[in-house]
Amino acid sequence: MTTTARTPVTVLGLGEMGTALATAFLDGGHPTTVWNRTRDRTGPLVAKGARAAATVAEAVAASPLIVVNVKGNDVARELLESAGEAITGRAVLNLTDGTSAEARSLAGWAADHDVEYLHGQLMTIAPGIGHPGTTVFLGGSPALAERLAPELALLGGKTGLVSEDPGVPVLYGMAVHGTMWGALNGFLHAAAILTSEGLAVERFLDHAGPSVTAMLSQFPSIAGEVDRADYAAEYGALRHHLPSVSDLVAESRDHGVATALADHTLELVSTAVAEGHDGDNYSRIVESFRRTR
Amino acid sequence: MTTTARTPVTVLGLGEMGTALATAFLDGGHPTTVWNRTRDRTGPLVAKGARAAATVAEAVAASPLIVVNVKGNDVARELLESAGEAITGRAVLNLTDGTSAEARSLAGWAADHDVEYLHGQLMTIAPGIGHPGTTVFLGGSPALAERLAPELALLGGKTGLVSEDPGVPVLYGMAVHGTMWGALNGFLHAAAILTSEGLAVERFLDHAGPSVTAMLSQFPSIAGEVDRADYAAEYGALRHHLPSVSDLVAESRDHGVATALADHTLELVSTAVAEGHDGDNYSRIVESFRRTR
Repeated sequence: MTTTARTPVTVLGLGEMGTALATAFLDGGHPTTVWNRTRDRTGPLVAKGARAAATVAEAVAASPLIVVNVKGNDVARELLESAGEAITGRAVLNLTDGTSAEARSLAGWAADHDVEYLHGQLMTIAPGIGHPGTTVFLGGSPALAERLAPELALLGGKTGLVSEDPGVPVLYGMAVHGTMWGALNGFLHAAAILTSEGLAVERFLDHAGPSVTAMLSQFPSIAGEVDRADYAAEYGALRHHLPSVSDLVAESRDHGVATALADHTLELVSTAVAEGHDGDNYSRIVESFRRTR
Repeated sequence: MTTTARTPVTVLGLGEMGTALATAFLDGGHPTTVWNRTRDRTGPLVAKGARAAATVAEAVAASPLIVVNVKGNDVARELLESAGEAITGRAVLNLTDGTSAEARSLAGWAADHDVEYLHGQLMTIAPGIGHPGTTVFLGGSPALAERLAPELALLGGKTGLVSEDPGVPVLYGMAVHGTMWGALNGFLHAAAILTSEGLAVERFLDHAGPSVTAMLSQFPSIAGEVDRADYAAEYGALRHHLPSVSDLVAESRDHGVATALADHTLELVSTAVAEGHDGDNYSRIVESFRRTR
């Protein structure tokens, strides 16, 4: 294997995701240096050809590209600071989960230390790293993203810069995850009702799959309504949702299932209706979320 | 137009959905009788060839198949009872929204009155009636569903019996809607965060579409985990969700967006983790919904 042409890469943090990242760079032929707080995690990667660094400074000195995936951006910053002068002039791809404010703060730190910076939000679990369908949202320098294109492509087929602002990929990732948790909670709440009657959830999904998929096809039009703040409905307005959400609360109670989730939806819809928005689409609910309570 | 071979159909209730239903039967060549509490709704349908009945009893007497779509099953029962002896021997397709208990109760009433009964849950807004992709979940007599196959096909291309139990289509519909409200709430909550920074939701969706779609591809495996009560995770366990949900709460607060929805998710996940399920998949959360609180 000739790896001399490939950029050396250092991976800081070898959790299940960091290990998958290091493996992707090794498989892509990059000389790969790894570091982890507990060194025993480095063994399998060293067996595949990685070099294990004894210190962060040594790991950082080994490569022009430093990939960081650790538990929180406080840890990420502490590690990068601990590298001392070795960090100067490097490029950092920070894939650590956190908030947009943290990503922006770290980008600011990087700028202050003559470090090029990209923030990335991985939209997959570890086994999805490197797959053609895997999305990675990137934010930061377009020039750096272009220069690192070959390395970034190893993360997933849908890796791309969404903004020069390193906070934006974090917000995008949060938006996908928030939608996912919402859908999962709604689904699992329903599953609790179905299974309380001995109904199989898989059988339900066999029948309901097309309806659940159709549900997602509404998202682009809802996004447009929010962007234009134009919520007017021709059909299926909030006044039609209201009795159905009330039914879901009753059904939950009848089946001994927690009502908190349905109660929250009922509160959102009934408040909007009470405020005179009964003829609006569900997209109007965005206004309720805009109120801090 | 020759309509003599088609079964006469009566539609009780001409809201936006009832009007779409009557139109579908008219377009399908069925002699169609309509009734609505406020008679002015019948005008456009009469112009298309429907007959407007003056009373419910007259409407019921006009056809062997009575389709009911009104505001709540209390109203549905009251109408059917008001038909008196005319209802005997008819077939009722009740498409009124409500709870599974109400559907079962009305089916019991029908059995007591020598009325054949099917309960149907329409999974569309009015303009979707009759489309090939439209799902209608049916529950009740398989023999009746078979006999009414030509009429039922006019409602939507994916109309089908899911159970002999008239409560099951209601629960299936509730499960789809509950999943939908969950996804919509998560999405609109995220939209409130994005737009607070001036980020366009449509642009987000251009980038995030594949991730949101990929999210739904998890549902069948989650359904299987719930059915088998086997929540063990190899990757992406609840311990990885926990910090990300905390980040969503923080991000909401930082952007002046309501935290209640994210707080509820955080409570579900942190409780499961505190109870020792940190290595389980998100499907484990179904157990939390099984507790009445």
